[in-house]
Amino acid sequence: MTYCVGMLLDAGMVFLADSRTNAGVDHISTFRKTFIFERSGERVLVLMTSGNLAVTQAMVSMLRSKLNAGEDVESLYNVPDMFAAARHVGETLREVHQRDAEGLAAFSIEFNASIILGGQIKGEAPRLFTVYAAGNFIEATPETTYFQIGESKYGKPIIDRTITRATPMDDAVKCALISMDSTIKSNLSVGLPLDLVCVRSDAFRVALHQSIDAANPYFSALRTRWGESLRHAFDELPRPDWLADL
Amino acid sequence: MTYCVGMLLDAGMVFLADSRTNAGVDHISTFRKTFIFERSGERVLVLMTSGNLAVTQAMVSMLRSKLNAGEDVESLYNVPDMFAAARHVGETLREVHQRDAEGLAAFSIEFNASIILGGQIKGEAPRLFTVYAAGNFIEATPETTYFQIGESKYGKPIIDRTITRATPMDDAVKCALISMDSTIKSNLSVGLPLDLVCVRSDAFRVALHQSIDAANPYFSALRTRWGESLRHAFDELPRPDWLADL
Repeated sequence: MTYCVGMLLDAGMVFLADSRTNAGVDHISTFRKTFIFERSGERVLVLMTSGNLAVTQAMVSMLRSKLNAGEDVESLYNVPDMFAAARHVGETLREVHQRDAEGLAAFSIEFNASIILGGQIKGEAPRLFTVYAAGNFIEATPETTYFQIGESKYGKPIIDRTITRATPMDDAVKCALISMDSTIKSNLSVGLPLDLVCVRSDAFRVALHQSIDAANPYFSALRTRWGESLRHAFDELPRPDWLADL
Repeated sequence: MTYCVGMLLDAGMVFLADSRTNAGVDHISTFRKTFIFERSGERVLVLMTSGNLAVTQAMVSMLRSKLNAGEDVESLYNVPDMFAAARHVGETLREVHQRDAEGLAAFSIEFNASIILGGQIKGEAPRLFTVYAAGNFIEATPETTYFQIGESKYGKPIIDRTITRATPMDDAVKCALISMDSTIKSNLSVGLPLDLVCVRSDAFRVALHQSIDAANPYFSALRTRWGESLRHAFDELPRPDWLADL
């Protein structure tokens, strides 16, 4: 399993992914799920993957091999805008599907993959997409501040309650880390280290790419204090006094 | 969809269920999912259901018809203990399966059902079970304070952080309502009114059975204040100052 969240703010974009993959609980490994494609000053794209690791790794390998295949070959370095980038990712995923889906089906293995793609290409504002296994995709609109893939439910309520487009980037990072903590607490197959990527609007480069593990002092303090705060908030709420006569 | 949670505390048991069922988003109805079987002073059993409504309703009808079929017929009124009650519920579910599973399969409809069964029968302590569609079941051990069925993920983190066996019943009710609120906020197919049932240990009767809708002043105050508290707790946490140079 995986948990990835990508946020689109006025200030820029925040991407957070865990790094655990599993094929059953007895086969757990660490794989990075975050990939950056950058031409500093002109474009920056960030991609996070969930689903069948063989499928998503094949897709990333194919995306990469196209980067260096010359200007005649469409790639994430030469697509004109983020819409074209999302279509390019979707089409690459379809190439993997054409090659592998039948082989997987013979073993009753589902061809599943979800991708968060965000970034900015000179000439337009930052944009955020989710690309599905079928190669189709949706884009975040002003009402949609974030996309999640993988094990999204445990970490969703805190995002819904705290994040809007106007949220500053440091608050969004704080929220993403709390959301991840709630997920890790509830799902063994989501695990450290985390990959955090921040991109400022109109910077066309990655501002921060950091690996966060259990030793990270900010994250470990946040985990402890958030638990205490929740517990405190819970205690402060009125008890149901209409139960007093129970 | 459904969300039900049953908690087993030293003080007694708390059961909370929503009442929404849906067959697609364009076919949403209100059905009660909580059923009480009580012989005051001797036994009290509470059952909550999720899954295919036709399956769970058939099961409840069969459980009820056995109640009045005489002492020779095993029923929830004459099983000697809660283990036998869980087995009785499981076997009744298997009878529904025998009758209906093939017919459902012809329309590719899955035979799915999950049941929370809790209660106390004179001679033993209160016990809490989850019964699965296959008729098998698990019981809460001292490490397991609660069971959930249906859309369980959104509402799980708050329970994990606040409830133990020693939690007083009013705190458990507060927690169950917050857990339900988080679920309702995130999943359209879980909805009001709620059915709340409380059973005190060794009372062998229902202490409270209340329907809670949007007009309930405690629940609506709790929803507002919990959102504010979470937001406040979030604001109070330190920002990631290592992002300052972004």
